[in-house]
Amino acid sequence: MSYTAPVKDMLFTIEHLANIGQIAQIPGFEDAGLDTAQAVLEECAKFNEGVLAPLNWEGDKNPSAWKGGEVTTTPGFKEAFRQYADGGWQGLQHPADFGGQGLPKTIGAACIEMTNSANMSFALCPLLTDGAIEALLTAGSDALKAKYLEKLVTGQWTGTMNLTEPQAGSDLALVRTRAEPQPDGSYKIFGTKIYITYGEHDMAENIVHLVLARVQGAPEGVKGISLFVVPKFLVNDDGSLGARNDVHCVSIEHKMGIKASPTAVLQYGDHGGAVGYLVGEENRGLEYMFIMMNAARYAVGVQGIAISERAYQKAVQYAKDRVQSRPVDGSIQASAPIIHHPDVKRMLMTMRATTEGCRAMAAVAAAAYDAAHFHPDAEVRKQNQAFYEFMVPLVKGYSTEMSLEVTSLGVQVHGGMGFIEETGAAQYYRDAKILTIYEGTTAIQANDLVGRKTARDGGQTAKAIAAQIEKTEADLRASGTPDALAVAQRLGAARKAFLDVVDFVAGNTKASPNAVFAGSVPYLMLAGNLVAGWQMARALLVAQELLQKGQDAPFMRAKITTARFYADHLLTKAPGQRDSIVEGAQSVTELALEAY
Amino acid sequence: MSYTAPVKDMLFTIEHLANIGQIAQIPGFEDAGLDTAQAVLEECAKFNEGVLAPLNWEGDKNPSAWKGGEVTTTPGFKEAFRQYADGGWQGLQHPADFGGQGLPKTIGAACIEMTNSANMSFALCPLLTDGAIEALLTAGSDALKAKYLEKLVTGQWTGTMNLTEPQAGSDLALVRTRAEPQPDGSYKIFGTKIYITYGEHDMAENIVHLVLARVQGAPEGVKGISLFVVPKFLVNDDGSLGARNDVHCVSIEHKMGIKASPTAVLQYGDHGGAVGYLVGEENRGLEYMFIMMNAARYAVGVQGIAISERAYQKAVQYAKDRVQSRPVDGSIQASAPIIHHPDVKRMLMTMRATTEGCRAMAAVAAAAYDAAHFHPDAEVRKQNQAFYEFMVPLVKGYSTEMSLEVTSLGVQVHGGMGFIEETGAAQYYRDAKILTIYEGTTAIQANDLVGRKTARDGGQTAKAIAAQIEKTEADLRASGTPDALAVAQRLGAARKAFLDVVDFVAGNTKASPNAVFAGSVPYLMLAGNLVAGWQMARALLVAQELLQKGQDAPFMRAKITTARFYADHLLTKAPGQRDSIVEGAQSVTELALEAY
Repeated sequence: MSYTAPVKDMLFTIEHLANIGQIAQIPGFEDAGLDTAQAVLEECAKFNEGVLAPLNWEGDKNPSAWKGGEVTTTPGFKEAFRQYADGGWQGLQHPADFGGQGLPKTIGAACIEMTNSANMSFALCPLLTDGAIEALLTAGSDALKAKYLEKLVTGQWTGTMNLTEPQAGSDLALVRTRAEPQPDGSYKIFGTKIYITYGEHDMAENIVHLVLARVQGAPEGVKGISLFVVPKFLVNDDGSLGARNDVHCVSIEHKMGIKASPTAVLQYGDHGGAVGYLVGEENRGLEYMFIMMNAARYAVGVQGIAISERAYQKAVQYAKDRVQSRPVDGSIQASAPIIHHPDVKRMLMTMRATTEGCRAMAAVAAAAYDAAHFHPDAEVRKQNQAFYEFMVPLVKGYSTEMSLEVTSLGVQVHGGMGFIEETGAAQYYRDAKILTIYEGTTAIQANDLVGRKTARDGGQTAKAIAAQIEKTEADLRASGTPDALAVAQRLGAARKAFLDVVDFVAGNTKASPNAVFAGSVPYLMLAGNLVAGWQMARALLVAQELLQKGQDAPFMRAKITTARFYADHLLTKAPGQRDSIVEGAQSVTELALEAY
Repeated sequence: MSYTAPVKDMLFTIEHLANIGQIAQIPGFEDAGLDTAQAVLEECAKFNEGVLAPLNWEGDKNPSAWKGGEVTTTPGFKEAFRQYADGGWQGLQHPADFGGQGLPKTIGAACIEMTNSANMSFALCPLLTDGAIEALLTAGSDALKAKYLEKLVTGQWTGTMNLTEPQAGSDLALVRTRAEPQPDGSYKIFGTKIYITYGEHDMAENIVHLVLARVQGAPEGVKGISLFVVPKFLVNDDGSLGARNDVHCVSIEHKMGIKASPTAVLQYGDHGGAVGYLVGEENRGLEYMFIMMNAARYAVGVQGIAISERAYQKAVQYAKDRVQSRPVDGSIQASAPIIHHPDVKRMLMTMRATTEGCRAMAAVAAAAYDAAHFHPDAEVRKQNQAFYEFMVPLVKGYSTEMSLEVTSLGVQVHGGMGFIEETGAAQYYRDAKILTIYEGTTAIQANDLVGRKTARDGGQTAKAIAAQIEKTEADLRASGTPDALAVAQRLGAARKAFLDVVDFVAGNTKASPNAVFAGSVPYLMLAGNLVAGWQMARALLVAQELLQKGQDAPFMRAKITTARFYADHLLTKAPGQRDSIVEGAQSVTELALEAY
C-alpha cells in the first residue's frame, strides 16, 4: 500500500497550466519559481511517502480512541505530527512574520495533495489548523495574533473550526451556542458543538478552537453570530499554558471512514463557562468563518484529488500483478495481468483522467488565488478573485463527487479482493464518502455556484470562462492533429451546454428558484467537468509542443492520451446534463410529499 | 431503520408490466395469478418487515465469527432462518415434487427483493441454496435428487457454490481443485476454495457444497472442469447424517460490508480427501455451474434493487424529519424539513426512479423466464429465452452499478449523520459494493452481453428489443400528453444511441475486439438504462389510463412523475454514452503499460 507522489505531473501542471513563472513575478514571490516548486515538492514527497503513508492503514485498523474526556490518536500519529511540524509543513503557505514560509498556494496545494494522499485522516489536523490561521490572520486583533499565530503556524498547537450543532448543520442560522460578555472583555461560552475534527487529541500541547456563538441580545439568524477563540488551555501573557479551559470532549463518533481522525462532540461551559475571546467584531462571525471555510473547501477539493490519486496507484499496482484470463485480442496466448483487459484499462483511465483533470483545475485555481491576493495590479487581482471564487465550489464539489466514482472503481479493479478490508482499497472508498459532505455538502457548494457565483453577476464570470475555453478550442483546431480536433469538438459541445445552463440559471434564479435549484448540483458537475476537461485540453496542446521538442516523450504521449480520454469519456456527459437541467426541472419537484 | 415492503409498486409491476395474467394461463401456473401474487407478497412483507429487517443492523455490529473451524452467525439469525424455512420461503419457486410451492419467478422475484431489502446478509444464504437446487434439478442424478433436494428446498439444509480459488477468480480455466475417482463411484476432492458465501455456519444441520474441480487427466482449461456435491456431513441412505466430511472452514474474511454473511475459505481433503459425488457428466461442470450462476446473477441484480429500495426509504424518512434551512421558493418562512429543498428532491427522485425502473426491468425479465421455461408453445419459449438471456447481464450489471449511486445518495441525503455508522445509511453503502463484484463483476456481465448476447446473433435480439421500444414510443406519441411526448423523445434518442452501439458491437467484435470491449461496460449501462427507462415509459402509459379510470390517483400521479423523471434525468445519459463507445475506444487502450 505504498504511495509515490506524482511529482512529475504536479510540476508539469504548476509550470504549464498554472504558469508559476507569472506567479514568481509577483513581489514577494520572487523566489517561488519552478526551481523552488521542484525542491519543495521533492522534499514533501519524501516525507509523505516515508512517514505518513505507512500510517494510513494503521489509522483505519487502530482509530483514535476516547476515554474519560481524552483522545488517544493512532500509534505513530503523535510522532509523525511532530516531524510534520518540525519540517515546517504546517507553515508552508503562511506568512514568514509568524514563522511560516510564505510560499504561494500554487506550490502549497500540491503539498497538501501529497499529505492527503499519504494519510487523509492525519492531514485533517493541519487542514483545520490552516483554517484557524486564516481566520486569525484576517480578523484577529494584534493581541490575538501575537498570542496564537506563531504557535499554530509552527505546529506547536493545532486549530479547529466549531460550526455545527445538533440542530444546526448546513443551516447556521440555527446556531444556539451563547457567549456572555465578561467585565475583562472576554466572554463565557456555553453550548454543544458536534462534528469537530481533531476537537480533542494528544498530538499537540494546546488546541485553539474557533467557535461560532451568539452574544446575548444578538439578532436572530446568521446576522447574530460571532466568532470566538476558545483555547483548550488558557494562555498566559508570556505564552506559557495556564488553566484548563471549560471545554470538554464528551465523545467521538464511530464513523465509516477517516477513522483515525477524531470527530469530537465538544461541551462548552458545563463547569461555569469556557473563556473565549472575540475575533474581530460582534455579529460578523459568519463572514470570518467563510474565510476559513473557503480555504477549507478548496482544501477538501484537494482531498478528493488526493484520495483519487492514491486509489489509482493502488489499482494500477494490482492490475499489473493480478493474472487472470487471456486478452480478447489474442495478443497473449495465456492468462495475463488484468491490465491487458480493455475494461480494466477503461477503469484505470477513468481514474487517471479524472484525477489529472481535477488536479489541473485545482492548480489553476490556486494560481488565481495567489494573483488575487498578491498581484500589484488591482484589475488583475479583481479578475483573478472572480475566477477563484467561481472555482471554489467546482474544486470542492466536482473533485469530491468524482472521488466517489474513482475510489469505487479502485475497489472494482481489485474484484473480490477489493471488498476485503486488508487489501486497503475499501478504506479509500469509505474515507472518500465524507468529502462530499463536510465543509458544505455538494448541494451547498451548488447553491453557492448558482447564487453568489452565477446569478449575482448575471452569469458574467461564467461567460468569461467560456470565452477563454473557446480560445483553447481555436488553439486545438489550429494545432490540427486528430487528437486536438477530437478534443476541440467535445470541448465545444460541453461549452455550449454550459452556456445554455448559465443562461438558464442567470435568467431564472429569481423567478423560478425551484426550477434552477433542481438542477444546481448537475450544473456544478457540468461546470466542474468542463473546466477540468478544458485544463486537460490545454495540457494536450503543451504536451504536443514539448513532444515535438523531444522533451520526455513517454510522459507527453501519456498526457495526450489521457486528455483525449477525458474528452471522449467525461466531457461527453455534458450535453445530456444540459438537457436534464434546462428541460427536466418539472419532474424533480412535482411529486406530492405524501407520495414519497 | 424500519422497512416497509413496496407491495403496491410490486403488484402494479407484476400486473401491468410483467403481465401476470398471461403467466397464469401457462399450464401449471393456473393458480399463480394476481390474487395469489397479492396474498404471497403480503405474507412475505409481514415476515420480512417483522423478523428479518430488525436483524440487519445487528448483523453489521455483530458479524459472523469464526472459532476453531466453526462459524457462529449473528444472534437471531439461526432462529430467523428456521422461521424462514418453516414459512416455506426457501421453496417458493421450487417444484412441489421436492417440497416447494412451484410459484413462477414473476412472483418469487418480488419476494427475493423483500428479503434482500430486509437483510441482505441473511438473504445470501437462501440465494446460494437456490443456486444449488437449480444445479441439482438440472443435472443431478435421480439418486442425488432424492438424497438432497427436499432437504434443501425445505430449508433443512443449505447450499453453496464453490468456484473461486486464490488464483482463479473470473478466470475459471485456472481452477486447480482436483477430484480422484474412487472404486465406489464417488470421488475424493482436494483443494482450496475461497469466497464461499455461507460456506460454514450454524443455521442448518448440513451444508451441501457444489464444487468445481478437475478429475485427474481432464483437459486443460474450462473444458476439464466437473461439478461435485460435497456435503459437510455425509448422508446415509435413510437420509440421516453420517460422518463429518473432510471439508473445513479455515477462516472467514474481514469485509467492508455484508458482515453477517460468513465468507469462508474452505479446505478440501487435508485429512485424506473430501467425499464428493459427480453431478451430471465429467467435464461438463462449467455448463451446470452456469445454470446456478445465471439464477444467482439475476438474484444479485434483485439485491441491487433491494438495497436501493431500503436506502431510499431510509433517506425519505430522514428528509421528512430533519429540519434545516428555508425553502428557496419562500413557500415556508422558517427552517423546514429538508425534503422541501429541490436538491434533496432530486436525490430522492433519482433513487426512486432508478429503483422502480430496475424493479420493472427485473419483473419483465422474470416473466420471460417463466414463459421460456413453461409455455406450451416452443416458439414462445424460444423468444422468451432469448429475451431473458439478454436481460440477465442487464439486471445484474445495471441494477447493481446503479445501487452504488443510490446508496451513495442515501448517505448524502443524511449529511454528516450519514457518515456516522449508527445512523445505518453507511451500511447500505458498504454492503452494496459487493454487488458489482460477486457472481461475475460488471465487466464479466458486459463480456457476456457483448459476446454471447449481441455479437453471436449479429445483434438480432437487441434489435428486436429496440423494435418493441419503438412501439412504446408510438404509443406515447398517440397518448399525446406532455409527459408522454417528453418521454417519447428521450426514449427515442436513447433507443437510437443503443442501435448505433449494437451495430458497432455486432460489426466489430471479431475484427476489433479491443475497441468493442473498451466500451463493453458503457454498453451494458446504456442498455440497462434504456430497458429500465422503457419499462417506466410503459408504466406511465398504464398509469395515465388507470388515472383516467379514477384508480388510486396519488399512486398513478407519482408513477407518471417518476417515469418522467427517469426519462429526463437518466435516459438523457444515453447519447453521450453512445459517443464514448462508438468514437472513444482509441484512448481507452493506447496508453503504454509503462505509463500507468
